[in-house]
Amino acid sequence: MRLSLRSLSLVLRSFSDRLSAVSEKQIDSVAVMRLVQFCRQGDDGRIRVGVEQGEGLGVIDLKAYDSSMPTTMKELLEMGPRGMQCAQRALDASPAKCVVPSAEVRLLSPVLAPEKVVCVGMNYRDHCLEQNAPIPEEPIIFSKFPSAITGPFDDIILPNESQEVDWEVELAFVIGRKGKHIKEEDAMSYVAGFTVANDVSARDWQLKRNGNQWLLGKTFDSFCPLGPALVTTSAVKDPHNLGIRCLVNGVAVQNSNTNQLIFKTEQVVAWVSQFMTLSPGDVFLTGTPPGVGVFRNPPVFLKKGDVVECQIDQVGVIRNNVV
Amino acid sequence: MRLSLRSLSLVLRSFSDRLSAVSEKQIDSVAVMRLVQFCRQGDDGRIRVGVEQGEGLGVIDLKAYDSSMPTTMKELLEMGPRGMQCAQRALDASPAKCVVPSAEVRLLSPVLAPEKVVCVGMNYRDHCLEQNAPIPEEPIIFSKFPSAITGPFDDIILPNESQEVDWEVELAFVIGRKGKHIKEEDAMSYVAGFTVANDVSARDWQLKRNGNQWLLGKTFDSFCPLGPALVTTSAVKDPHNLGIRCLVNGVAVQNSNTNQLIFKTEQVVAWVSQFMTLSPGDVFLTGTPPGVGVFRNPPVFLKKGDVVECQIDQVGVIRNNVV
Repeated sequence: MRLSLRSLSLVLRSFSDRLSAVSEKQIDSVAVMRLVQFCRQGDDGRIRVGVEQGEGLGVIDLKAYDSSMPTTMKELLEMGPRGMQCAQRALDASPAKCVVPSAEVRLLSPVLAPEKVVCVGMNYRDHCLEQNAPIPEEPIIFSKFPSAITGPFDDIILPNESQEVDWEVELAFVIGRKGKHIKEEDAMSYVAGFTVANDVSARDWQLKRNGNQWLLGKTFDSFCPLGPALVTTSAVKDPHNLGIRCLVNGVAVQNSNTNQLIFKTEQVVAWVSQFMTLSPGDVFLTGTPPGVGVFRNPPVFLKKGDVVECQIDQVGVIRNNVV
Repeated sequence: MRLSLRSLSLVLRSFSDRLSAVSEKQIDSVAVMRLVQFCRQGDDGRIRVGVEQGEGLGVIDLKAYDSSMPTTMKELLEMGPRGMQCAQRALDASPAKCVVPSAEVRLLSPVLAPEKVVCVGMNYRDHCLEQNAPIPEEPIIFSKFPSAITGPFDDIILPNESQEVDWEVELAFVIGRKGKHIKEEDAMSYVAGFTVANDVSARDWQLKRNGNQWLLGKTFDSFCPLGPALVTTSAVKDPHNLGIRCLVNGVAVQNSNTNQLIFKTEQVVAWVSQFMTLSPGDVFLTGTPPGVGVFRNPPVFLKKGDVVECQIDQVGVIRNNVV
């Protein structure tokens, strides 16, 4: 089990935050957790849902702790406060027999098969400037199909159909309860937590084909690495002030802060929920900062053998090999 | 129980087709059925999956016939041939205790919660001409979220956010088994069957907002009425030679034939499966013929109290009140 100083400090901070938070409000609204979906090594590929003891540490198997708990994140979110409370109790108790050591954990995307993967385009000021595009006055919404989702450490599969596959690190959030016409001031109570996404994009298909509809270029299989954990809303101090970086083969190609977001989480939730009912498990990708490959001079695209790492402070790191 | 001459002739034809088909090939590839999802009147809103005895006739509750059968169409499709064979046996046997009279049946969309709702734009020659748009050389693919799906006789909810809500009758098909990089010549074996869709569209949002991405204008809640049944592929003589009509308040506003489709079912399946893995239950809308409201002079849009009826020969009729 690897335990870096950074992990240790995260664990301690998380514990101290939890203690102070619990004293202030009800437990269901302040759950400070890193929820994950995972397979256990040597197991038959069964999906399990669990709580991390700290980033990269052991995972408490929720169903082992309480057999009435579900085995997927979507079902856990659909349970509402009861599911979150149980996960919190499991973390607090951490009975040894329910802990799966990190070496035996293969992390999956924290959500699989959501009803929606909602994406916001052109949502960082500098990203608009790098492509000489006006700052949008309203969020621009597009989508990926759930079939594009892949795990935080799984491969990005370079399709034969594209020669221009690009990276886009993004802060993602996951909806925790059903809602429509949600007000900005209530929006955060609909968000279960945050995670890291790579909005992998085939620029040829996004920008030059398919009648200018971005969908096809955005939704090849494996074009939505997601994870490593669903970090509950209360566990992130300020989601709109987080360092956000993308490294390709160890070189920083994107390096910004979520304080550059044009439309923040609350605004995106309120905007999108005008059009459609949001449901537990819905995944939102909030847009990417500058530094993507297509707007470099000359343009740079991903090739087989590349390693793409997306990092967001307090949320986590995902790392995907390009194959 | 209403039993029109048309229904009766459909039943007889279906029966005679079935007899001849069964003698020719294996039962799983020639299932001639109208599969439905429904609630039973007076029941607690439980979803059931069934087989119609004929269009608009009684429905055989599949789980009542065989308790090992699932209660949703997606699960039935995921079972593969075993599910289809069981449905076929249920229809052939039609035990009285498993038949729900049509008066007690409330039909739902034949598929709920698909992984994808894939839509083809500009796929009828005349529809391109009516908007002075070139005939596309490749299919143009966009999407709706599954949250837009509503039942074949449920209401279309006019959102306050749009003043330009329009109709689009479309031939829809549903994927029956998993596949990627599917060849045109194999494509039909991946299609479980056909149904009728209305690709309801808020033209202001589709064409003038959201950075030209059509998604938002296409995906308001209730903007995808679907049904009345999943008509299995073998039950449709030639899906590309079917009369297709839309009536608003009884007046025909669209009246064409699916022989005008630019990209047919096989081509659409092959095209889309280059980009993504198709899964059982995925819904495809193949595009609309001319006669939509936005390209009329002056433009016409739906208003509260309107009734929109979409008809496709051999497949069925859906009818939705605008509220």
